[in-house]
Amino acid sequence: MKIGFLGGGQVGQALWEVIQKENENILNLLGEPLEIKKVLVRNLSKPRIIPNYYLTNKPEEILDDYEIKLVIEVMGGEEPAYSFIKRAIENKKYVVTANKEIIAIHGDELLKLARKKGVDLGFEASVGGGIPIIKAIKEGLVLDKIKEIWSILNGTTNYILTNMEENKAEFSSILQEAQEKGYAEPDPYKDISGLDSVYKIAILSSLAFHTTIKPKDIFREGIEKITLRDIEYAKSLGYSIKLLALAKEENGALEIRVHPTMIPQNHLLSAVRGVNNAILFKEERRGNIILYGPGAGPKPTAMALLSDILELSYSILHSHPRYYNFAYLYPSDLKPWGEIKTRYYLRFWVQDRPGVLAQIAKILGENNISIASVIQKETNIENEKAEIVILTHITYEKNIQKAISEIQKLPILVEWNSLIRIEV
Amino acid sequence: MKIGFLGGGQVGQALWEVIQKENENILNLLGEPLEIKKVLVRNLSKPRIIPNYYLTNKPEEILDDYEIKLVIEVMGGEEPAYSFIKRAIENKKYVVTANKEIIAIHGDELLKLARKKGVDLGFEASVGGGIPIIKAIKEGLVLDKIKEIWSILNGTTNYILTNMEENKAEFSSILQEAQEKGYAEPDPYKDISGLDSVYKIAILSSLAFHTTIKPKDIFREGIEKITLRDIEYAKSLGYSIKLLALAKEENGALEIRVHPTMIPQNHLLSAVRGVNNAILFKEERRGNIILYGPGAGPKPTAMALLSDILELSYSILHSHPRYYNFAYLYPSDLKPWGEIKTRYYLRFWVQDRPGVLAQIAKILGENNISIASVIQKETNIENEKAEIVILTHITYEKNIQKAISEIQKLPILVEWNSLIRIEV
Repeated sequence: MKIGFLGGGQVGQALWEVIQKENENILNLLGEPLEIKKVLVRNLSKPRIIPNYYLTNKPEEILDDYEIKLVIEVMGGEEPAYSFIKRAIENKKYVVTANKEIIAIHGDELLKLARKKGVDLGFEASVGGGIPIIKAIKEGLVLDKIKEIWSILNGTTNYILTNMEENKAEFSSILQEAQEKGYAEPDPYKDISGLDSVYKIAILSSLAFHTTIKPKDIFREGIEKITLRDIEYAKSLGYSIKLLALAKEENGALEIRVHPTMIPQNHLLSAVRGVNNAILFKEERRGNIILYGPGAGPKPTAMALLSDILELSYSILHSHPRYYNFAYLYPSDLKPWGEIKTRYYLRFWVQDRPGVLAQIAKILGENNISIASVIQKETNIENEKAEIVILTHITYEKNIQKAISEIQKLPILVEWNSLIRIEV
Repeated sequence: MKIGFLGGGQVGQALWEVIQKENENILNLLGEPLEIKKVLVRNLSKPRIIPNYYLTNKPEEILDDYEIKLVIEVMGGEEPAYSFIKRAIENKKYVVTANKEIIAIHGDELLKLARKKGVDLGFEASVGGGIPIIKAIKEGLVLDKIKEIWSILNGTTNYILTNMEENKAEFSSILQEAQEKGYAEPDPYKDISGLDSVYKIAILSSLAFHTTIKPKDIFREGIEKITLRDIEYAKSLGYSIKLLALAKEENGALEIRVHPTMIPQNHLLSAVRGVNNAILFKEERRGNIILYGPGAGPKPTAMALLSDILELSYSILHSHPRYYNFAYLYPSDLKPWGEIKTRYYLRFWVQDRPGVLAQIAKILGENNISIASVIQKETNIENEKAEIVILTHITYEKNIQKAISEIQKLPILVEWNSLIRIEV
């Protein structure tokens, strides 16, 4: 079974290594070993554990080689990886990829193309690193009617939030520490902005809800604005703050959103610490299922790629592709953002004088928002300022946004600080 | 696709119901619907949601009907289920079963027979109820070198232990409550003795370690002897008590054991409460993976059966069975029981007089057991008795057993209470 790698970075090298180690077992399972014919790299002279003999910088040596039946894409990024995958499929090659961005944005199109060309496209490694989540949802939960997904899909942001809480430190200092330890990229934008989680929840919800969810349609808010003050308020109220990727279905309408979320401290997802990921499915007949594990890293990713490689090799050897489409059962529609419903935590400073809380409460009441609790914990006597924290009952996002814009116009408002959504 | 059920009890009826509801989706996925031809029951006149027309009490109407391609066994128990499954496979029928006992005891033989006859045998529903654990370990973790499995596989015992801790109640009163609520069987022997967990860990470790583990070779201790006093000592020391099913591999030697186990309160498995199950895999390259969910119940079991039914139907329609053997990679040997190593919690009453602790410590020292901590918490002045709790460092089981038999012979021993193994 001749295969080619697109990419020879950390993941490519980890995969190279595990294939060398496991090739005798692969032979026993498949009836033949894997033979890595070529590895596409940008820079031929960079030091790698892959011998130079295998390296090439010419994509056609893999994409147009009729001997190579299976292409493994581990370059990352949208281009040129997307064009390469497309060309491989057009040339009737099976493809395995770890690329969440490409599957989230182009997955539907590529799966249809693969079906047309009679080949498979595997993407187990695109979400959840070493957690076998794609197989679980595609096959294990195949006829489930999943109602909700609650997930922690980005290790970097979970590491930052966990460490802010444990070490009582601000975002920027923990981010710097995470970069020094290699848990955050030099450019951490995709992680901390929630974009990485958006790609991953787009893939999971396309699978769970049998439809095509585009990343651009998913509401996204990053963790940049989370302060230690909010984390400590949350803690004192019995909550943890996590960057949750949420998907909920109700009467065929979907809400999918990625944002910092307060969840009860005794919720199982609160116990997910550091760079780990976890995915909770709620299904009426099956109950609550959780999968937990390391969300990233070259070795876990290589193991996920390997399970796909084995499965697709089996399909190739038996000329028996197992087609898969996102939208194979029924389509669902995304709710307009204003129609989502949840609880909210609001924090802001106002002038400390009589009647202020009444003005706030009036605005909330006029927008059909009922207050679950109010904390006025600290007053700054010198500046005559007071800090107010409000927890609401369930309400519509459109109501809260309208109320906040009205509160922000009040002359008594000194500083607006935080809005954090709460799920219980 | 004509199928037959062996069994029309709670699980059979839940499966009947879900197939009726999902048959249009099944048609879309498979290209044809499932057609349940016959359901074997003992008592034809018992009220059921399955119409009488489908019921039969003659096994041959399913096992010898050439039109039925797939047989679903949901009777439970070893016989006659085992003979029926064997006959179905001999008649070249694909089989799906929820029967942990049969897979644990006869799985290896039945998988070999299935391969010989060119059919598949599915057993997703045999372990972990609604958790897609068999697929995860067979396919998702296919080339993993699993080093350890830590698992909670029995909902009844986990419910009892959780409730003893939460409600500060003794075993017998919680067992009675569990029976009243339907969380424990009228005859709870297989659950509380650990036998149910033994069947399940036999299956998981046969898959994980690519070998055939027989239930009779697994060390087993039930939860009958766990007292509230031990649970409260454990709590004060920072531990929870769980009925763990453990499997560990070291240099090709296996230890597999089911017994009440003290685990740290901040361990993720400590958070598994009530009737839930969880399975933790430790693998060097992949890291720690946990799957969590409801461990039993007719509906979760029906969903697990359904995923197998869909997969095997696909194989039947494409004349393409995917054979599976336990021992497909390399064999491993079980360690003798005395060779396992762990930490221990010991509790007993002695006469309260000088030099008593020295006698105990001498015995432990002579058996190469080093003490991690000693608590002498309560003294009964009237009876001149003292209660001693000892936590040991890691030692061999054979050493601890020898030491205990010597301690039990000491004239100063008043009452021997507890030995609980500790894993951290």
